[in-house]
Amino acid sequence: MSAEDQARHAQKMSQIKAARDRMMAGKTGEKGLLIVHTGPGKGKSSSGFGMIMRCIGHGMPCAVVQFIKGSRDTGERRLLETHFPDLCQFHAMGEGFTWETQDKRGDIAAAEAAWARAQELIRDPGIRMVLLDEINIAFRYGYLDPKAVIGFLAAEKPPMTHVVLTGRNAPSELIEAADLVSEIAVVKHPFRDGIKAQPGVEF
Amino acid sequence: MSAEDQARHAQKMSQIKAARDRMMAGKTGEKGLLIVHTGPGKGKSSSGFGMIMRCIGHGMPCAVVQFIKGSRDTGERRLLETHFPDLCQFHAMGEGFTWETQDKRGDIAAAEAAWARAQELIRDPGIRMVLLDEINIAFRYGYLDPKAVIGFLAAEKPPMTHVVLTGRNAPSELIEAADLVSEIAVVKHPFRDGIKAQPGVEF
Repeated sequence: MSAEDQARHAQKMSQIKAARDRMMAGKTGEKGLLIVHTGPGKGKSSSGFGMIMRCIGHGMPCAVVQFIKGSRDTGERRLLETHFPDLCQFHAMGEGFTWETQDKRGDIAAAEAAWARAQELIRDPGIRMVLLDEINIAFRYGYLDPKAVIGFLAAEKPPMTHVVLTGRNAPSELIEAADLVSEIAVVKHPFRDGIKAQPGVEF
Repeated sequence: MSAEDQARHAQKMSQIKAARDRMMAGKTGEKGLLIVHTGPGKGKSSSGFGMIMRCIGHGMPCAVVQFIKGSRDTGERRLLETHFPDLCQFHAMGEGFTWETQDKRGDIAAAEAAWARAQELIRDPGIRMVLLDEINIAFRYGYLDPKAVIGFLAAEKPPMTHVVLTGRNAPSELIEAADLVSEIAVVKHPFRDGIKAQPGVEF
């Protein structure tokens, strides 16, 4: 690289930095966010757990409620229950996927119990982030009413608490109410090639 | 819900379960995956860290190389360095974003050093997952050649090692070579509303 190229690069980056600094200077607000990860692609729950990991690293008390997954011995569950039981409450309250249980009344009761637990956790102002993992599946099957959940969050979530809701098919009312929404598309998935769910990747 | 509704639900779920069981029965393969999280939306790095957390929960040795982020005191870094230094090597080798450094030669040297470290980690068959965080940014700026990286992975990655590559603008050759690709779109982002990056959520 010539000295001229290097100088041109430095000037261009200097302009980008100035523009970015101006943009970021306007971003001074802090608030507890409603965060939604939805769409058919892989990465919704794992991104939620990545944020939980960040909270733990900062010493911020946090909590996880799993609405659908429940019985499985996952890596995230082992890590949280073994190492951080005081900093991160973990409640696996799903009975498994609905096609496993084949019991709609039981599924509804499990979703309602999970939501009751979630409400307690969200009301606690000492808890800084609550991950409601796969709650969108409970909305999708009609086990929970999104309007009731959104109404509760608007009325009772402490202003600085982050609530993360995951699962495909997020209801439109939830997307409307949220502060941050990511939609994850599948470009490629190895299930299509006969590869099974593997530890570390899917659970 | 009437007994008839309950029976209809059970039958429908039973059919879904049978179809799903047939589908999953064909998925018996296991392999180390090339996983790419790309796109402009939030959740690429956090999803990578969620998978690292799963590995740690299962006791699978793993490693992280950060290509762009580097100097910042993040939650993920604190957690990994404080609690799991033996199970998960953490190398923050980026010098910061390129518009911060304004030094193309320095950025190229940092990217090359990070890739040299990544090659050592990937070659080690005891390490089960390697997260190459924000490596796509290094491709995008021309600091690393995607063909050289893909060639190395094809030739030298142990068959059971998972490698996760994150960052927006993944090069097309990488998408072609990968087993699992998720593309994350922004539906809403609170930066647009003047909210700054917050601990637990972005770092």
